[in-house]
Amino acid sequence: MTKFITSDDILAMDKQTRVHFINSLSGFKSVALVGTKAKNGNTNLAIFSSLVHIGANPPLVGLIFRPSPPERDTMRNMIETGFYTVNHINENIYKAAHQTSAKYDKNVSEFEITGLTAEYKNNFFAPFVAESTIQIGIEFKEKIDIQINNTTLIIGEITQIYVPDDCVKLDGFIDLEKANTITCSGLDSYHKTVQLDRLSYAKPDKLLTSLL
Amino acid sequence: MTKFITSDDILAMDKQTRVHFINSLSGFKSVALVGTKAKNGNTNLAIFSSLVHIGANPPLVGLIFRPSPPERDTMRNMIETGFYTVNHINENIYKAAHQTSAKYDKNVSEFEITGLTAEYKNNFFAPFVAESTIQIGIEFKEKIDIQINNTTLIIGEITQIYVPDDCVKLDGFIDLEKANTITCSGLDSYHKTVQLDRLSYAKPDKLLTSLL
Repeated sequence: MTKFITSDDILAMDKQTRVHFINSLSGFKSVALVGTKAKNGNTNLAIFSSLVHIGANPPLVGLIFRPSPPERDTMRNMIETGFYTVNHINENIYKAAHQTSAKYDKNVSEFEITGLTAEYKNNFFAPFVAESTIQIGIEFKEKIDIQINNTTLIIGEITQIYVPDDCVKLDGFIDLEKANTITCSGLDSYHKTVQLDRLSYAKPDKLLTSLL
Repeated sequence: MTKFITSDDILAMDKQTRVHFINSLSGFKSVALVGTKAKNGNTNLAIFSSLVHIGANPPLVGLIFRPSPPERDTMRNMIETGFYTVNHINENIYKAAHQTSAKYDKNVSEFEITGLTAEYKNNFFAPFVAESTIQIGIEFKEKIDIQINNTTLIIGEITQIYVPDDCVKLDGFIDLEKANTITCSGLDSYHKTVQLDRLSYAKPDKLLTSLL
């Protein structure tokens, strides 16, 4: 049986049910650890499921921030220092990654608490997560206020990438399964993936073929 | 071996390689079919991998649009009519869904071409995809220009939801695997998922437990 749910039904849900429900509706999501360092040297690590591709040239990604405190630390560091890292989450670290969403005091580093290792390299200001298979160094570019619900879109340019050699195909595609990158749904569900296929570039009047 | 890739390396890639590579970096993505109807009655169906959760109350989702023509049709319909649908993609329809990305003439409906069925119900203006297990009706709310690369963020409010009864858990979480919803990576790779766990709400000094 199909449930039909209206705006009134959504409004009538209790807060936590609505948060779980609406967060699930946007489908499987990219989930990653965002690493920053404050001007005073304090490090911060936070899990995000709102990473979105903005463009390839220049290479841009976006992140949505809610007005709540733990995310505010990360956003302030990004804007004040100009740098942050995005680190893919794999099966070995997803529990530690989830734990970073707890509301720790401002002077507590989620790196120390969770046992994940801050890694500095090639003069990049912000810490990478050593345990991540794919690490991305990003330069802050633009802050866009989303007034309808007081959230913020932060856009940055990718300037450093660390990825295992054997995960990058000849055509540029990265085999995320080989890198053990996982995905999430809702607020708290983690999933590994099984590739169904890669499909050829779609054209009118041409049959799709498999690229595998 | 880990490959270290810099801004200069990205710039030096040929265009198609860069597009595959950068699109893969944002991790596994939500992938869905967006259905619209023009004022003149023409229908349009397009695959998007940029759906992002914006907030639960009010229930808002965002979509990123590039300045290219096929997406422009969809965006114009959304803004001119005020309504669109987001339809989850399952294993049975991902090839048809991928085919909607071909550049058809403006007066060609991707519904007819791909054999996917336009479904109208409960007085919603835009067509749902009958073959989708989870269907969402959305009202256009806000258009935000991202000037750095001439893309656009469209935000809408969820007003109708169709979801199988047995996929919705007591706490509001939707079991997307039970609904056969799939995910994608890069431009052309489709994946089903295997749930690892659902984790309890994280708190300082409290061990995570499984919600399964």
